[in-house]
Parts: sequence; C-alpha cells; structure tokens
Amino acid sequence: MDKKWQVGLIRVVTLSDRDMAELHGRLIMEMFPALEVETRCIPDQPEGIHDPESKAMAVPKIIEVAKAFKDKDVIIVSCADDPGVKELRRILTIPVVGAGSSVCALAMRCGPRTGVLGITDYAPPPYVDMFGDRLVNLGRPQGVNNTLDLLTDQGQEAVRKLGMQLKEAGAQSIALACTGMSTIGITKPLEEYLGIPVIDPVTAEGLFAYYECIQRNSK
Amino acid sequence: MDKKWQVGLIRVVTLSDRDMAELHGRLIMEMFPALEVETRCIPDQPEGIHDPESKAMAVPKIIEVAKAFKDKDVIIVSCADDPGVKELRRILTIPVVGAGSSVCALAMRCGPRTGVLGITDYAPPPYVDMFGDRLVNLGRPQGVNNTLDLLTDQGQEAVRKLGMQLKEAGAQSIALACTGMSTIGITKPLEEYLGIPVIDPVTAEGLFAYYECIQRNSK
Repeated sequence: MDKKWQVGLIRVVTLSDRDMAELHGRLIMEMFPALEVETRCIPDQPEGIHDPESKAMAVPKIIEVAKAFKDKDVIIVSCADDPGVKELRRILTIPVVGAGSSVCALAMRCGPRTGVLGITDYAPPPYVDMFGDRLVNLGRPQGVNNTLDLLTDQGQEAVRKLGMQLKEAGAQSIALACTGMSTIGITKPLEEYLGIPVIDPVTAEGLFAYYECIQRNSK
Repeated sequence: MDKKWQVGLIRVVTLSDRDMAELHGRLIMEMFPALEVETRCIPDQPEGIHDPESKAMAVPKIIEVAKAFKDKDVIIVSCADDPGVKELRRILTIPVVGAGSSVCALAMRCGPRTGVLGITDYAPPPYVDMFGDRLVNLGRPQGVNNTLDLLTDQGQEAVRKLGMQLKEAGAQSIALACTGMSTIGITKPLEEYLGIPVIDPVTAEGLFAYYECIQRNSK
C-alpha cells in the first residue's frame, strides 16, 4: 500500500539506539499502513520525562524538534504527559497529537470512569483534565519506578495487581499512562486478565494521527 | 485494497431507498478502505428516532437487526443517541460502536467543553454522560425540526448561527449530534466558518469501528 501521509513522531527521551527510538513508529506503521513515520528524539535528556521538572526541561526541546520537521501532515508527541502539545497546537498549522489525550479519548468511550495506570504517582495532566474527579488513581504499581522495572516478572505482576484494584475501585477501563507499556506489549494480556478494555498509548496516538490525516485530506 | 473487516451498520430509520440507506456505509468505506460495510434498516419506523418515545420503540428492533447479522467483526449503530448500544454490548461478543459516544470521544480530545449541535432540544444521552455539566447545550438550530430542514438555506444558516453561539458560550469543539449532519456534508464548511474542530458523526463511528477491528485482529 502507498504511504499516503507523513507523520513526524517525537520521542521525549534521548535514545542512541535507532531501533529502540523507532519502535513506536514501527508499531504505528504496522497498524496504519497508510502512515509513514519519521522519528526524532529530543537532545540531551537520556532519562526522559519522569516528573514535572524533567517535563519543564523537555518542552522547549519538543517545540524545537517539532518545528524542524519538514513536510509532515501531523506531529505526534509520543508521551502520556502530552508535553508541549498545547503549546505546539498554538504554534503549528498542522495537527498535533499527544499520547495522553488520545488514550483518554478512547477510554471515555468505555464509560465516564477510567483507571490511570502508569509509572508515576501523579496522573499525567490530560488524564486529570479529561476525567476530573471521575479518574480512578491509586498511584503506581508497587516497586515500579521506570520502564525497565516493567520488564521484570515482579513488575508485570505489580501492573496486573494494580489493574485489578482499579477495576474493583470502579474503573470501567484502564487508561495506560506510559508509552513504555506499549513497547513491552502488556496491553492485550492485561485486557484479557482484567476483562475490561485497556487502552494502549501508541495505538491511541496512531489512531488519532490517522484521523487527523483523513480530516486533512478531505478538507 | 482487500476488504479486511466486515462491518454491520444499522440505520435506525426505515428507508426504502437503498442508495439513501447505504450512504453512511459508503462514506465509511471511502474513508476506511479496509472496511466492508453491510447496511440494514430497522423495520416499520420511517420517522426514525426523534424523541424518547421513538427511541424506546426502536431499541428492541435494533437488537433484533444486530443479532441477525452474520460473520461481522463490529456492529455500528449509526445514530447519535446510541440507541441499544449499551444493551448490545451486554448481548454480543463482538464490539459495538455508537455514533454519539464516538463523536464525544473525539470532541474530548479538543478540551473538556464541547457544544452539542443536533436537531433535538435535548442532548442525546452519550453527550450528557460523557461531558456532564461541561456540555454546552443551547437547544436546536432555529426552525430546524428534522434532517430535511437541514437541506434549506435557512436551515444551514441556523446551524452556522447556533455553532457560533456555542463557541461564544465557551465550546472548544462542536459535537454534531445527528448523522444527518454528515450526509449533508456540513462538517467541513462549518469548521472553516467557526475556526474550532467540528466532529462528524459518520466519520467518528467509522474511526472507532476501524479501531475495534485493529484491536480484534491483534488479539
């Protein structure tokens, strides 16, 4: 199938390994063959975004990277925090998609209460903005402090346990809040285990990038 | 491109004109070439759904029509009221997409306040469920009582006027609340006129049907 649309995807972490950096883009191109994804990382931030300070440091870099893309139909900021997304929507003339607001929009279809499941104690801003006091937040999985912890058996068991607690607390869906959850492929097994929809961040941002491209095309 | 997925689409109005009945399906297949859409109308309800009573009458018919589809990957109930969607989700093992909840999910990406713009005075249930007191509702366009009124110059002027009033009242997007808005092609011109995103019901239901198919495939 012809690549119809050009997507610029921003990783909010500095990764020297090209294959690892391009993993989100590859997942999106598999699901949406009409999209061609070019990936760029922000510079000098190998620890990525993990708290409000590191987010503040990343936002101006994200804006610079976004502006440097050429001839794109849509920009994806591939992070559940949606860092820089509001700012970029004011600056750029093309649509800007964030992982966080995309996950929340999909979760909203499943009912007004969703459980946020990420690797930080605080819920990322889009989750709070969109669900308000209907967001179910029980903090992060026990013992999980970064995406590497998600690769261990204990880490994955902690994710399953927290997912079940969120469901028991009334969540009608699980809104994953870290794109690292997508890369370890936990979405489907977790959904089968919990029996409620689990929303995958990279799938979600890909879907809305595709939507924006269709919209743009029909204008 | 091969048709990968089979969609059963339910029109909640009895239409004897096959072309008219299949219009939503054709729009969806143009936007999402991987979807093959089969359309069926509910029987004996040429006036469709226009108030709570006609909705109550339609729901059991929608359930019967949905059950009669064979070998589908997803069912679309092509109506902003999402009639029968909750009931069908309990009955069927395949995903069920409603136009209303789909529009609202897309509108939610644009911010927590959306303006509902349909042809009834009351906002359809998904709009109220998903936006609560952040929904901006100013009733229906002046002089517009049914989809036929949307075809007149006065009707379209009334839609533009109400759209502007919703924006001035704080709406960050316009959530169209009648699939007839899609068929008359008002979404794009209205978006250009208002300068805020306008969410199209048939596009929205097609997008989430596509999403459900992708999900199903990857399971």
